[in-house]
Amino acid sequence: MIVVLKPEATENDAMRLMQRIEERGLKPLYLPGVERVVLGALGDERVLAELNLESEPLVESVKPILTPYKLVSRDMRGHDTEVKIGKVSVGGERVVVIGGPCAVESEDQLRETAFAVRESGGVALRGGAYKPRSSPYSFQGHGEEGLKLLKQISGETGLPTVSEVMDTADLPLFVDHVDCLQIGARNMQNFRLLSAVGDTGMPVVLKRGLSATIEELMLAAEYILARGNNNVILCERGIRTFETATRNTLDLNAVVYLKQKTHLPVVVDPSHGTGIRELVTPMARAAIACGADGVLVETHRNPAQALSDGKQSLTPPQFLQMVRELRTIAEAVGRTL
Amino acid sequence: MIVVLKPEATENDAMRLMQRIEERGLKPLYLPGVERVVLGALGDERVLAELNLESEPLVESVKPILTPYKLVSRDMRGHDTEVKIGKVSVGGERVVVIGGPCAVESEDQLRETAFAVRESGGVALRGGAYKPRSSPYSFQGHGEEGLKLLKQISGETGLPTVSEVMDTADLPLFVDHVDCLQIGARNMQNFRLLSAVGDTGMPVVLKRGLSATIEELMLAAEYILARGNNNVILCERGIRTFETATRNTLDLNAVVYLKQKTHLPVVVDPSHGTGIRELVTPMARAAIACGADGVLVETHRNPAQALSDGKQSLTPPQFLQMVRELRTIAEAVGRTL
Amino acid sequence: MIVVLKPEATENDAMRLMQRIEERGLKPLYLPGVERVVLGALGDERVLAELNLESEPLVESVKPILTPYKLVSRDMRGHDTEVKIGKVSVGGERVVVIGGPCAVESEDQLRETAFAVRESGGVALRGGAYKPRSSPYSFQGHGEEGLKLLKQISGETGLPTVSEVMDTADLPLFVDHVDCLQIGARNMQNFRLLSAVGDTGMPVVLKRGLSATIEELMLAAEYILARGNNNVILCERGIRTFETATRNTLDLNAVVYLKQKTHLPVVVDPSHGTGIRELVTPMARAAIACGADGVLVETHRNPAQALSDGKQSLTPPQFLQMVRELRTIAEAVGRTL
Amino acid sequence: MIVVLKPEATENDAMRLMQRIEERGLKPLYLPGVERVVLGALGDERVLAELNLESEPLVESVKPILTPYKLVSRDMRGHDTEVKIGKVSVGGERVVVIGGPCAVESEDQLRETAFAVRESGGVALRGGAYKPRSSPYSFQGHGEEGLKLLKQISGETGLPTVSEVMDTADLPLFVDHVDCLQIGARNMQNFRLLSAVGDTGMPVVLKRGLSATIEELMLAAEYILARGNNNVILCERGIRTFETATRNTLDLNAVVYLKQKTHLPVVVDPSHGTGIRELVTPMARAAIACGADGVLVETHRNPAQALSDGKQSLTPPQFLQMVRELRTIAEAVGRTL
Repeated sequence: MIVVLKPEATENDAMRLMQRIEERGLKPLYLPGVERVVLGALGDERVLAELNLESEPLVESVKPILTPYKLVSRDMRGHDTEVKIGKVSVGGERVVVIGGPCAVESEDQLRETAFAVRESGGVALRGGAYKPRSSPYSFQGHGEEGLKLLKQISGETGLPTVSEVMDTADLPLFVDHVDCLQIGARNMQNFRLLSAVGDTGMPVVLKRGLSATIEELMLAAEYILARGNNNVILCERGIRTFETATRNTLDLNAVVYLKQKTHLPVVVDPSHGTGIRELVTPMARAAIACGADGVLVETHRNPAQALSDGKQSLTPPQFLQMVRELRTIAEAVGRTL
Repeated sequence: MIVVLKPEATENDAMRLMQRIEERGLKPLYLPGVERVVLGALGDERVLAELNLESEPLVESVKPILTPYKLVSRDMRGHDTEVKIGKVSVGGERVVVIGGPCAVESEDQLRETAFAVRESGGVALRGGAYKPRSSPYSFQGHGEEGLKLLKQISGETGLPTVSEVMDTADLPLFVDHVDCLQIGARNMQNFRLLSAVGDTGMPVVLKRGLSATIEELMLAAEYILARGNNNVILCERGIRTFETATRNTLDLNAVVYLKQKTHLPVVVDPSHGTGIRELVTPMARAAIACGADGVLVETHRNPAQALSDGKQSLTPPQFLQMVRELRTIAEAVGRTL
Repeated sequence: MIVVLKPEATENDAMRLMQRIEERGLKPLYLPGVERVVLGALGDERVLAELNLESEPLVESVKPILTPYKLVSRDMRGHDTEVKIGKVSVGGERVVVIGGPCAVESEDQLRETAFAVRESGGVALRGGAYKPRSSPYSFQGHGEEGLKLLKQISGETGLPTVSEVMDTADLPLFVDHVDCLQIGARNMQNFRLLSAVGDTGMPVVLKRGLSATIEELMLAAEYILARGNNNVILCERGIRTFETATRNTLDLNAVVYLKQKTHLPVVVDPSHGTGIRELVTPMARAAIACGADGVLVETHRNPAQALSDGKQSLTPPQFLQMVRELRTIAEAVGRTL
Repeated sequence: MIVVLKPEATENDAMRLMQRIEERGLKPLYLPGVERVVLGALGDERVLAELNLESEPLVESVKPILTPYKLVSRDMRGHDTEVKIGKVSVGGERVVVIGGPCAVESEDQLRETAFAVRESGGVALRGGAYKPRSSPYSFQGHGEEGLKLLKQISGETGLPTVSEVMDTADLPLFVDHVDCLQIGARNMQNFRLLSAVGDTGMPVVLKRGLSATIEELMLAAEYILARGNNNVILCERGIRTFETATRNTLDLNAVVYLKQKTHLPVVVDPSHGTGIRELVTPMARAAIACGADGVLVETHRNPAQALSDGKQSLTPPQFLQMVRELRTIAEAVGRTL
């Protein structure tokens, strides 16, 4: 940790701060410069962070050297972590396609879509029972009823399921009904939910928040791993920028960066990442090409009738075509699908 | 609602869509143009939204005409809503200053800071018992113990209290111990929490999310009002942009815009909005000058020892000086403090 | 064009506005609604834009229906435009790789790098003679001397050249020395430069501005096409967002969107789009996978000694490896390299 | 400057880098840590920047300690710089209001508006002769004819003038016709133009780019000061963010930050900063309240007929009312108007 002092700081001030650093069992360094005095502090920066040196009136800035995350880092664990959703492994040599409707609407809709996903080569079923919607006047999901349908159709198709949990109070219900939890973008920093999900030990797809930095995503995952649950799949789903032609800006840089910094699997959601049906398949191809471990894609038997996000849902034939194209790309980068 | 069709849409397609609009009891309009066919749909757009016309393959785009919020709108209620925190009215002629530490750290710290706030002219006490922190390794707040201290110090000083609630499960505890709930930026779209807070009927400070649009903030408030709770104070606290010199970009445009579109009180948090102690007072002045109903400012008896956010906390003398300056600005815009 | 009136607008106000619309030879429409009166105006929206109806005090908002660009649109020209840089065609079935150093530093450096590019499969040489740098204290490029070196090395290698022009006054020099102009991100809305470049008739790589929307990029290209010069290659090179882990956020959504809306070739610059050497090749793969017509990649014989942007430059062996991987991806999407 | 090495860097690597630092006449420091080796380099960081240490394969990151700007810094010059536009001083105790139309449209329009500005208390006249417009189909300004009108009306009213220059080739014309140059947001990093404007020695209003950081704005000013021209007025005019309710997000944080870091005057343009007439006056008040040295406001005798930006232009009575309110705020912060 590097501590830059303000020009008015005296040598005495510097000594006092160095003493504070030393009291924490760390090694202080004194680096007098021409325009500013700079202090160094060597040791575990997570201890140093508690000193809150940036609050000192004579401190101009504090620059951390080490990353604030630890358990999710490749430094901790050199090999890739594989996470199991039911019998499906995510993060290995095989690229995964997870498909399904934005929301569970009805038994027929879910069954029909699920079989289409399976026949196209999809290996898990996604579907929302509790839907986060900007407006209170929009369809909010069928709740418990939706979870029951997911379990039923999972039994019929053999596909394991992924569904978003929005509140700690609902967790017991999810543990009983789905194979993998999802934490949505809007809840990426709902720290109570992260910890509670960590306690379940269940696999979880953790979506990046709309304006979360890559580092914040890793720290959110750290909350889950800190509870002893390593079954975290990171998901890039687009960030909010000034661009309005697309619903979000899909940040594939983040995929490559995450794969280099963490040992966790990384998947991509090109449906929310683009918001436009015609962009989903090309961006799914790009995701696999840059190294993602899989994609999460919305598909609906009849998008024009979908209760939510129909504009970005693929039809079953489009979904099938996408899987075919992804297979070719997966092979081009030395993987399978 | 205006529906623009793709160039390949035929007259038959247009007729079919118009029929769908009509079936919902709305009035469809046919507007053939040179390059595109455009349809209009007159009536309650909240009903129209359920049609999900943007999901139709032949629809290029859907442009809403009316705002999606309703209860928070000035169209619904012409006069300003005043919200009471204890005996303090927010949204009236008098500008309010709410002060206190980022986190409740100890009885002494809270008491000393609270008395300083009261003596300086502050009318309510803020303080976090549950702290949302990016890293699991940072101080997370004293929880229930912190709420008890808030209640105790409130009794001693007569200041009503505001504190952030992070989970629906904690609500009963908050109802017993604080005068006003706060929903933090990271939970602005925690819709379950919004609804549950709405059900309590308690006053609530609703902070704008880091990347929430002004409209999304109004829709989040709409969730609370939809439960019959009008006691919502909107809070601008800075948004996330590309600028890194300051912690956030304080969007005072939003204050003026909100005051014109809604009947709810609007306050500003210049502490999080800048992240830099030296910027807090000037930006608090700007907030009152443009029409905010008050400010929420972090102050700590000894910022250099604060467990969180010390860098942006005012000392008690700085807090006093700020209130004096705000009083002059309040008078310059025809209000009191 | 849809014109939404304010609630206080009377029928007379509406009639007056409709008359203004009609005077321009367009067809006005009157759409009275429950909460607002809405007007339509059918015809060429580029004429309508001159009415500046949004300036009218009683107009709440104006929503255009048609795109403001025209010559760059697929509506105008159904087939893909191919642009020639020397003998190299960009925008056809063959994917192109353009390589070279950020800046022309010396004859040796340029020659060595250029031959490495050619031997690896690169088809054109990039190199900056005039460098836009944030700080006046950074290396600004060798200017005219750099252009001469580009011409000389082009002669030796047979590679056509691309170089950035920053000022209209330099254009004659560029016309004499390079095969293709480049307009950099910081000059994307230097409209005088766009028009002057249009007048040369030369091929031009037009880079997207750091905070330019996709539509603004198309409108910038429109400035060039409006001068009768169709030889425009659009280039996505990353946009500025809140994310700081990478230099920019490479927006591949934009590539797919542009390919669907315009007939112009689209290339990607993964060097500036990521700013990190280790991310360049994976993101180049992603670019080709989603449909880009080529990539523009910085390479330097010894990045650690580069006078600018060394951190994002590939070494010659890395460049060669990248081209090999891109060839596999190109084939996977049915193209060649 | 702090240089963090990658985990795989050996002691030998560190020694080699330290030698490179020493060769430049700077003092290297060796700071071995638990997880990483860190190097320090003490001395003028502007020299160090040329080393491009971040390009070294074994360097993980380089963290500068000192600011990259110098001449614009308060460290260089403790007292406030006052810049003269004609006889008007900007940056002193008196707050200035600069008004006028977005574009010079006609002699009558300019004269009428200019007299209204002067009678309301405005001290300088702004007006565009060359207009940067996103679309080639929009009104581009009257060019030289517009500059002549500005000079003529300046003679009639006694108001000095400010107008935007877009190309180095036009500078001689501007030197002859206006009192103060303006560099627009889109040209803030047109470095050739910055240097050429620096060479004229004329006062210049330098507008912040749409996505320029505060530091980049200071570096752009540094280009002008580096040519010996200190007559730079910085202008905050709103940045581009995800928010679309307003045209831009006016970043008043930047005003306070700039006033603390530089000795240059800072003015605010609430017209472009909001894009909405009803927000201009409240945000102008906020600007003065937080410490801006003046405002630049668009006003038009008849906004509904304006050829550009009518939506954000004040009518003459609104302009007069604004000046009155600003006078009260100026007095509340101990200044005059």
